[in-house]
Amino acid sequence: MGNAALRKKIYIIIHGTDTPAGRRFDVVLLWMILLSTLIVCLESVPSYRKLFNEYFRILELVFTAAFTLEYFLRVYSNPRPLKYMFSFFGIIDFLSVIPTYLAFFIPSLRYIMAIRILRLLRVFRILKLTSYVENAQLIKSALSASLQKITVFILTVCALVLVIGTVIYVVEGEENGFTSIPQSIYWAIVTITTVGYGDITPKTAFGQVISSLVMLMGYAIIAVPTGIVTVELSKAKVPGALSVGPPLTCDNCSREVNKTDNYCSNCGQALVRMK
Amino acid sequence: MGNAALRKKIYIIIHGTDTPAGRRFDVVLLWMILLSTLIVCLESVPSYRKLFNEYFRILELVFTAAFTLEYFLRVYSNPRPLKYMFSFFGIIDFLSVIPTYLAFFIPSLRYIMAIRILRLLRVFRILKLTSYVENAQLIKSALSASLQKITVFILTVCALVLVIGTVIYVVEGEENGFTSIPQSIYWAIVTITTVGYGDITPKTAFGQVISSLVMLMGYAIIAVPTGIVTVELSKAKVPGALSVGPPLTCDNCSREVNKTDNYCSNCGQALVRMK
Amino acid sequence: MGNAALRKKIYIIIHGTDTPAGRRFDVVLLWMILLSTLIVCLESVPSYRKLFNEYFRILELVFTAAFTLEYFLRVYSNPRPLKYMFSFFGIIDFLSVIPTYLAFFIPSLRYIMAIRILRLLRVFRILKLTSYVENAQLIKSALSASLQKITVFILTVCALVLVIGTVIYVVEGEENGFTSIPQSIYWAIVTITTVGYGDITPKTAFGQVISSLVMLMGYAIIAVPTGIVTVELSKAKVPGALSVGPPLTCDNCSREVNKTDNYCSNCGQALVRMK
Amino acid sequence: MGNAALRKKIYIIIHGTDTPAGRRFDVVLLWMILLSTLIVCLESVPSYRKLFNEYFRILELVFTAAFTLEYFLRVYSNPRPLKYMFSFFGIIDFLSVIPTYLAFFIPSLRYIMAIRILRLLRVFRILKLTSYVENAQLIKSALSASLQKITVFILTVCALVLVIGTVIYVVEGEENGFTSIPQSIYWAIVTITTVGYGDITPKTAFGQVISSLVMLMGYAIIAVPTGIVTVELSKAKVPGALSVGPPLTCDNCSREVNKTDNYCSNCGQALVRMK
Repeated sequence: MGNAALRKKIYIIIHGTDTPAGRRFDVVLLWMILLSTLIVCLESVPSYRKLFNEYFRILELVFTAAFTLEYFLRVYSNPRPLKYMFSFFGIIDFLSVIPTYLAFFIPSLRYIMAIRILRLLRVFRILKLTSYVENAQLIKSALSASLQKITVFILTVCALVLVIGTVIYVVEGEENGFTSIPQSIYWAIVTITTVGYGDITPKTAFGQVISSLVMLMGYAIIAVPTGIVTVELSKAKVPGALSVGPPLTCDNCSREVNKTDNYCSNCGQALVRMK
Repeated sequence: MGNAALRKKIYIIIHGTDTPAGRRFDVVLLWMILLSTLIVCLESVPSYRKLFNEYFRILELVFTAAFTLEYFLRVYSNPRPLKYMFSFFGIIDFLSVIPTYLAFFIPSLRYIMAIRILRLLRVFRILKLTSYVENAQLIKSALSASLQKITVFILTVCALVLVIGTVIYVVEGEENGFTSIPQSIYWAIVTITTVGYGDITPKTAFGQVISSLVMLMGYAIIAVPTGIVTVELSKAKVPGALSVGPPLTCDNCSREVNKTDNYCSNCGQALVRMK
Repeated sequence: MGNAALRKKIYIIIHGTDTPAGRRFDVVLLWMILLSTLIVCLESVPSYRKLFNEYFRILELVFTAAFTLEYFLRVYSNPRPLKYMFSFFGIIDFLSVIPTYLAFFIPSLRYIMAIRILRLLRVFRILKLTSYVENAQLIKSALSASLQKITVFILTVCALVLVIGTVIYVVEGEENGFTSIPQSIYWAIVTITTVGYGDITPKTAFGQVISSLVMLMGYAIIAVPTGIVTVELSKAKVPGALSVGPPLTCDNCSREVNKTDNYCSNCGQALVRMK
Repeated sequence: MGNAALRKKIYIIIHGTDTPAGRRFDVVLLWMILLSTLIVCLESVPSYRKLFNEYFRILELVFTAAFTLEYFLRVYSNPRPLKYMFSFFGIIDFLSVIPTYLAFFIPSLRYIMAIRILRLLRVFRILKLTSYVENAQLIKSALSASLQKITVFILTVCALVLVIGTVIYVVEGEENGFTSIPQSIYWAIVTITTVGYGDITPKTAFGQVISSLVMLMGYAIIAVPTGIVTVELSKAKVPGALSVGPPLTCDNCSREVNKTDNYCSNCGQALVRMK
């Protein structure tokens, strides 16, 4: 078997899901990613680390070796290796294997491995869950469409929490836990997003009045991103809403018609269009 | 009275709500379920358990005996007993009585009895609250329709909290309460859902910056499921969705047409309708 | 001046807002309600109570005397006193004055006076803020329309928190703060509504896993009431959505027309309607 | 160069973004605002204040001197100086410089400087982010349109938390942390907005039952502002809302007409339009 034929065969196994070998490869990969992520998580639990430290270390090396091999095969088999290496998944694949090697020098870097979980995004492709992919696309496009509005909103909230944080810092002061303006801004964000940890809380009557106002304001504010996303999602659901161009109209009675109509539903005019 | 006649009579009393006996049976059952659930709850309160332990035990046995009898009558009277036994309500009915018997061996199993409360779902049928059932159906169908989108969303959130949890674990470390990655993921979920218990909170300045970013991100994220459900609910509310009768179709090509159309948009057939 | 004339004059002053005297009466009443509510609040603050106890007591008696007089005048002047006494505002007016008298016997009853604040609902009428009243009506009608769906939803949540509360009680147990099933249900409600006080939190790994699931579920659940209310509000906003009867159509071309149109916007047909 | 010419030149540099000088001025100003706000924040951190107090003080004086100069140039170059001084940005510009001078007498006033951040609202103009400005306008107009409804809603919530606060104060009492009615109202707001700090929590069983009811009620309540804003945002998105040009009107009676109308719906005038 020639070199080119081998590359092509590897490419089909790695990227294809139509052949039994390609499908088997994807399923094995999926389970390896899940397992290696689970091991990173479990390894961080002190009691497990004490008991199974050796096994965790061995498994991590095995998984990293396998993923490294896979990475090189992907680069080798790809007709355009550089394009893959700097693509979204190429970078994630690289970041999934490199931390183990770097961890010999700087141990805490090992946790970057958690990025491995993002490789699971391929799972949709593997399981041929096209309707899920479509729904994900829909949510993504709605979020993209609302990105500018959400950005404006987040920037406004940022300016707001800075002002609120400064006010509460002056009112409550360092003796009540508001030790600096950055920490008071942190408190303002915790409050306005309705998270409310309670690690820093207003103690003075005036501080509680200001907090109450901030919370009631947060009430109206939390409605804004919800409204934005809902409107974008509802637009994305209207049939044809994503199509380009102006609405189609009947040449005879000027009434709006659908792209799939053959006759005007109002006057019965036959509709002739470029297909 | 023959065996078959008896079975039929029992069946009518248990399943029917049209006869006085059937209705009386349902109302008694409803109150027994509510009472027995209440007793499970009260029994768990230490001060009540000390005082009324004997009474609780007796009542529990009485209720369980009654529900056991009812369960056997349901199985006995049902024309297709196996189908009932493996139906949703059949399993719930079984799980409502078995814990008391198992509790002789493993006491903590007794609490599975709380599943009894789910038997109350029959209450809608008993009280003939059809409009409530319709509304429940509407919410259910909207949730079903958005199930795929919600699943995609929850999976994305899961991947996100895993990455956030790992980052905060590295940043804050075990000395600040983030004792392991799983616990840090728990913190990330508590934060991103805006629950914010405050049992684990970031202590370092950098950790608070990351938390702030997570909360602001959670702002945009919480909007997504709301948007999805709202759109589905609003689609379920579109005029005609609840209207009686089948959709209108063209006599010529059987395609669905709107009430206000004069001509079929597919074949151009003039539409004549009863006004 | 006769008795009937006096009653009529009082009635006009109390209920009317068109005469200068009636308007003055309403504005004075408004301020007295606000002040008396403020005093109930301030009196509960220990440091103020120590300092101004005498003044608070006197003011409370003055306000109660005035409100009692007002109540008797309302009953006396009303053509149908019994109907007023058992109306919404009649009961609130009664409950606003009676606690001070009962407090001679049972002091803690005094706080029922806080119900006085509800009398402020009359403020909308006093200030002739019709557009505010209209908006309040809109919100109220949207909430009424969604009442059944919200009820179904709240009942489902109730059944859910009962099951979740029992599960977490068994998993965490009394040693971790989940001292009884009712308290565990309280925890479940605190969690699923994303309030998250943090007074009771899961300590075991398994309890934290269950909490995480409950929070993610709460994500989808919180979307439901928002969706319901949004849909009802959007329906209430469609022009004519609250009007009775089917949509109006042009007799000539059957196209839908607005109630305020004089001519069909499609074919120019003059529209003749019953006014 | 004459006085008027100088003023005009300064005016163009300060207000214009079309000339290179004007653009450079805006970008430098933008960075100075960001830096000076950052310094106010960092200065409040005790550890930084100890180390860099001298540098902070000098930088603050430099920035304030620059902003003071800028303020005087703005007043000087403006054709209508008084109008500028009492405009929104005129007041903010003034409040950005005055605190440093006042701080010689009352140090805590220095923090009013945080208002400087609001000057960044000019950033949209500087960066020519017109589409961001449009989106901000959209959100602003939707919030304005829902202002009355939100006000009605917030007032209702205020009345509600007053009643809830009083009830919980009576039920829990001072020994459980509910030390006064105002503080109990603060707790009610913390709970109903789902912030849930947990600094004050119900201890008695009855208090927890009331809290649970409040939280479930808060569920339905939080849906209202979201619904209001969503409806307003969706109305603002109706096709044509962002279209250029004035609304179409009937030539005969000047009433607004739709683009698809053939006849004026008010006077029946045939509408002839350029296609």
